[in-house]
Amino acid sequence: MRLAILGYGNLGKGIEAAVAQNPDMELVGVFTRRDPQTVKTANAKVYHVDTLLGMQDQIDVLMLCGGSATDLPKQTPEYAKYFNVVDSFDTHARIPEHFSAVDASAKSGKHIAMISVGWDPGMFSLNRLYANAILPDGKDYTFWGKGVSQGHSDAIRRVEGVQDGKQYTIPVESALEAVRNGENPDLTTRQKHTRECFVVPKEGADLAKIEKEIKEMPNYFSDYDTTVHFITQEELDRDHAGIPHGGFVFRSGKTGLHGENNHVIEYRLKLDSNPEFTASVLVAYARAAFRMQQEGQSGARTVFDVPPAYLSAMSGEEMRAHLL
Amino acid sequence: MRLAILGYGNLGKGIEAAVAQNPDMELVGVFTRRDPQTVKTANAKVYHVDTLLGMQDQIDVLMLCGGSATDLPKQTPEYAKYFNVVDSFDTHARIPEHFSAVDASAKSGKHIAMISVGWDPGMFSLNRLYANAILPDGKDYTFWGKGVSQGHSDAIRRVEGVQDGKQYTIPVESALEAVRNGENPDLTTRQKHTRECFVVPKEGADLAKIEKEIKEMPNYFSDYDTTVHFITQEELDRDHAGIPHGGFVFRSGKTGLHGENNHVIEYRLKLDSNPEFTASVLVAYARAAFRMQQEGQSGARTVFDVPPAYLSAMSGEEMRAHLL
Repeated sequence: MRLAILGYGNLGKGIEAAVAQNPDMELVGVFTRRDPQTVKTANAKVYHVDTLLGMQDQIDVLMLCGGSATDLPKQTPEYAKYFNVVDSFDTHARIPEHFSAVDASAKSGKHIAMISVGWDPGMFSLNRLYANAILPDGKDYTFWGKGVSQGHSDAIRRVEGVQDGKQYTIPVESALEAVRNGENPDLTTRQKHTRECFVVPKEGADLAKIEKEIKEMPNYFSDYDTTVHFITQEELDRDHAGIPHGGFVFRSGKTGLHGENNHVIEYRLKLDSNPEFTASVLVAYARAAFRMQQEGQSGARTVFDVPPAYLSAMSGEEMRAHLL
Repeated sequence: MRLAILGYGNLGKGIEAAVAQNPDMELVGVFTRRDPQTVKTANAKVYHVDTLLGMQDQIDVLMLCGGSATDLPKQTPEYAKYFNVVDSFDTHARIPEHFSAVDASAKSGKHIAMISVGWDPGMFSLNRLYANAILPDGKDYTFWGKGVSQGHSDAIRRVEGVQDGKQYTIPVESALEAVRNGENPDLTTRQKHTRECFVVPKEGADLAKIEKEIKEMPNYFSDYDTTVHFITQEELDRDHAGIPHGGFVFRSGKTGLHGENNHVIEYRLKLDSNPEFTASVLVAYARAAFRMQQEGQSGARTVFDVPPAYLSAMSGEEMRAHLL
């Protein structure tokens, strides 16, 4: 299987590393809107995006590594005409319209377009689906973290007097325990997560004002218990350079003629690198996309539509013997 | 969808309760080898197994609730000729031969036979497959418990001087923590689980001899740290009547060009009733079996082959809007 990458940010870099871990795959190259000379990859060849359509016969699956805000709503429908594609579109509320646009385009081009792949949406969604199908009488809980939220870190950096900053989303341990114990609690936003901010102030900035502005910021911080730590740029660069993330999906549900027995299903991710893990999920789904198209299927697909076996390089016999 | 149950032990009872939780399903009845008059169900009609083949046009999926040792190796191939079937065949080492026998039979009858459904094999297997596909460079860990092991409880009851008994398999907390922390430990059998036995001795039995015989029993106990508690029948009946179980599936794996980032995927089940949860999984897969056969598919299938969406009563649109 021959993969190509469109867009070489953190996700694109993760795809390059993930392809190297899968012996049945090779990387054709990275395609970029920038001057190819300025893009430094680990090993991959770099091409300008204008050459992409001319290389259709050399690429089995195109990995779309742009952002959900403006890149993917355009790119996925556009390229699904010409390639099998995988994207990580993660604006949950707009998935239905994205699916429709991509589906029409992928069908017209007789390709498979795997959308909203990753861990949330992605593996978390899958776990919600399985657990809901098994325990119809139950309650779902999703917690995120401990991990870096890009959106909240950006929000901090927009505050006046802030030079740099990073925000961690942290699930509340007592809430996790209550869910895990089958207590089926009703939890407010504040009871589920706390937010911890590491902020580098500009010289002479009013720290109290920065802290107040962060803690009271609507949507981002005002509904949470937020902690603000002021540190130096050196400390931020040294101690907070990683992009860890993760979280928990729970379903707690009843069975029995009178709902007398409770069950808790828990799925947890603990990720050193959010983009590298996301990339690894995308690469597994690229395998599935290619197989499904080779079978004659076309259109948009999500993780819900893919038989798990299609993700693995193993044969059915091997899987049944070693994993079942 | 019209389901029927063959065999009314704990699993069959669990199926009856699970069908009642799914509005798109109804239960035709329970089929038994016993005298139907002697089988008391919650609500279901009871038929003798001899009438089963005459009711083919009234049953969409037959739920096979016999044991893996002698019932299912015969029943699943036999009934897959006449019905879509779901079984919970759990003798891991014999799954390949069971699959082959069932596949031929299901194809000849143009039915879907979903085998080895439940949680291990079943949901645990699925999690091993997904996690292996995402993290090819990693290590798998499965822990069971805390829960009642039927086989080990039976083994206790065969010891001379024992009137009754129950055995709990318990994962070692420090081993779970080491795996969860990404330490990728090599663990011996003894380091992974402990075994706790609650034993009711016969009057006048030699307790020291019973304890020694249990602790030194090869295969079952000798490789574990085992605790033996002697209690009364009354205490056993009062405090140990449940059939809880569960466990953990972990995969810990590296990503990055130089394997510099570690990730831990954890799936955990905490079940008040092992048979009721297993039954709930089987019922979700009955929905999938029926749909796959209606599409014209036939043959044996495992959880690896089923698109997750087929398990849910929701439409694709609903799933994408609410679960993705």
